[in-house]
Amino acid sequence: MQKYGGTSVADPDRIKAVAEHVAFTKRHGNDVVVVVSAMGKTTDNLMSLANQVSSTHPGREMDMLLTTGERISMALLCMALADIGVDAVSMTGSQVGIITDTVHTKAKIVEVKGDRLREALGHGRVVVVAGFQGVSTDKEITTLGRGGSDTTAVALAAALSADVCEIYTDVTGVFSADPRIVPQARKLQHLSFEEMLEMAGVGSKVLALRSVEFARNHNVPLHVRSSFTWEHGTWVRNVEGESNMEDPIISGVVQDASESKVTIFAVPDRPGVSAAIFEPLANANVNVDMIVQNTSREGHTDISFTVPKADMKVAEEIVTRVSKEIGAGGVTHDTDIAKISLVGAGMKTSPGIAAKMFRVLAENEVNIQMISTSTIRVSVVVALGKMELAVRSLHTAFGLDSGSAYSAPLPERK
Amino acid sequence: MQKYGGTSVADPDRIKAVAEHVAFTKRHGNDVVVVVSAMGKTTDNLMSLANQVSSTHPGREMDMLLTTGERISMALLCMALADIGVDAVSMTGSQVGIITDTVHTKAKIVEVKGDRLREALGHGRVVVVAGFQGVSTDKEITTLGRGGSDTTAVALAAALSADVCEIYTDVTGVFSADPRIVPQARKLQHLSFEEMLEMAGVGSKVLALRSVEFARNHNVPLHVRSSFTWEHGTWVRNVEGESNMEDPIISGVVQDASESKVTIFAVPDRPGVSAAIFEPLANANVNVDMIVQNTSREGHTDISFTVPKADMKVAEEIVTRVSKEIGAGGVTHDTDIAKISLVGAGMKTSPGIAAKMFRVLAENEVNIQMISTSTIRVSVVVALGKMELAVRSLHTAFGLDSGSAYSAPLPERK
Repeated sequence: MQKYGGTSVADPDRIKAVAEHVAFTKRHGNDVVVVVSAMGKTTDNLMSLANQVSSTHPGREMDMLLTTGERISMALLCMALADIGVDAVSMTGSQVGIITDTVHTKAKIVEVKGDRLREALGHGRVVVVAGFQGVSTDKEITTLGRGGSDTTAVALAAALSADVCEIYTDVTGVFSADPRIVPQARKLQHLSFEEMLEMAGVGSKVLALRSVEFARNHNVPLHVRSSFTWEHGTWVRNVEGESNMEDPIISGVVQDASESKVTIFAVPDRPGVSAAIFEPLANANVNVDMIVQNTSREGHTDISFTVPKADMKVAEEIVTRVSKEIGAGGVTHDTDIAKISLVGAGMKTSPGIAAKMFRVLAENEVNIQMISTSTIRVSVVVALGKMELAVRSLHTAFGLDSGSAYSAPLPERK
Repeated sequence: MQKYGGTSVADPDRIKAVAEHVAFTKRHGNDVVVVVSAMGKTTDNLMSLANQVSSTHPGREMDMLLTTGERISMALLCMALADIGVDAVSMTGSQVGIITDTVHTKAKIVEVKGDRLREALGHGRVVVVAGFQGVSTDKEITTLGRGGSDTTAVALAAALSADVCEIYTDVTGVFSADPRIVPQARKLQHLSFEEMLEMAGVGSKVLALRSVEFARNHNVPLHVRSSFTWEHGTWVRNVEGESNMEDPIISGVVQDASESKVTIFAVPDRPGVSAAIFEPLANANVNVDMIVQNTSREGHTDISFTVPKADMKVAEEIVTRVSKEIGAGGVTHDTDIAKISLVGAGMKTSPGIAAKMFRVLAENEVNIQMISTSTIRVSVVVALGKMELAVRSLHTAFGLDSGSAYSAPLPERK
């Protein structure tokens, strides 16, 4: 199973390079299924056309429109393969049997049939599948939303019990930090599903969260690598047996500047207020990320949460209304924030990581606005202007720069 | 039933104009089904991409690629309709139930189901259908070849017993001659299917021959009109009852410079030679148009025929081979030819049209190389350089310039 993103098939020359690589893989005795995204800016161009003709974008028609991008890619790749003597056949999401629910623009896969795919593989063919799309139980064309092509690839890999799902992209793997911010960032050789999930969850763009969840649930090994250099990249898979003592405790630092913060002041501290705030947000499909509630003081508390900037307008309207209904003091928002996360499976057994993180940030005069943690992750919200400084200083402090990763916590200072 | 060609949906502004017109038609109490072509140069751009990635163009993948063009148009048109409050739904050839045979890139329609289409109309929706495409009996995406969107529109109009199939294009109707050659050419108010068939058959580009045949066979009235001016155009329909005495005998002059001429000299005049020549051409899918065989002299004859310039290379190879096999004298070809045709239902009852045509051409020193006739058409092949002169002089001589059409033949001179 190989998946090629938009930059990997951005132009005819890139498509021909992909065809060569597919041919190479096929000729080494592998059955190959290829999932493709739309070429480069195709999806953006289609969106732009949609905006020019209409301010209303019915989901069904958006799906009809956007699915053409992947179909163009897959037909062109099959032609390029035919040109170099590889017997290839393209299949739409519908033809390959990716059955989804009926929620247009972000459908969920309910079943993968794959009969036609298996039959074609049985005939020795390479199958090229349009990513990002399926057919609903109502027989309508649907799309899988963000990261949909990754999800297509992983779902098919699971259905076919593929040895590996290779995700080809424009970077050479998953890095210990964004190399644009931290030039010394290292490519990670391997990550557990858990770590990759946390990294995707806190803003790493390399893999879509959903596809990683799917891969973990079906135990599909992922190999994230570059279609420009073809070098080995980062493996994401189940860690079997004991973890290696030499494995780094921290795998990476991830930043995310795509969210805004909303704070509701002086919320009466009584049962049901949280539900009153977050239920309408959920109903409006606002993706609430971090939620922090301070300890109550004099019967009132402050509640802050982060949402994607795109959901900000809807969120603010709802929260302003609810704030009045529940008798809260008021609502403020801040768009100039960034979330910084440390992720590492070793955190489970190494206490003090969070404390060290906070100290490093304090030493660099980075003020922490919000904190949230999981067993293998610590995330903080800081001012957007401090983001790069925070990422760089954490990367250095946790020994990720050197190549010999940070492997044991320093004794806590009192 | 309304069909919009590529220039009618070439850009977002044109699509919005089409949406307004569809809304207008709908609000006047009509059920509306719209068939769209790909936007402007979309198909050319997709072809260019195909050429860049591959020199082999498997039919199945070409169909997969090219059908995306119409899907983009239809989704955008539905969005534009939604924007102005019209409930519209797009359907692919597959969804609308256009079942074809399995011949990729030029499939033939074997059945039109239309259940989903009727259901949507029943709910008061406008249905926007992707032209040019269907789904084969093998469940593969197919395209209908040249003029495919016209054929889609006519086939659906027939299946739905539509009142009219309006073909919107970039010209205001069918003209008595190509206005680029004959500025005085008149727009024809109405034509019979027979006349339109002959005009399409001899090179008029306004309607695809296949769609006219389909319309005649299923008695679907066509209205060819402009999506730029929205004025009434040319009706093509069954002429009921007696023809009107005032109807012009000649409807139009059509030129076609897209063919080449092949001549085989000194063909032994014995049974089977024609089959020996034309069977292999048919097997190679060469579209032979006019065929002229001279009266035999001394046991030998010359056979000339015309083929599309695109088929010329294949045709010449075959004919050169066959010519040796049957012991003919040799083969020549001429690409600088044009076919000029006079078409008019009144010819049936007006003798002498052909003779007058030949005289007009002779007076203008246009040499005639080949002649072929049907009951309502006379076609001649002349040198390409004489084409415009021939068209203009015939247009004038048959009274098409003036607005008062030629209505009776002059007495034949002896």
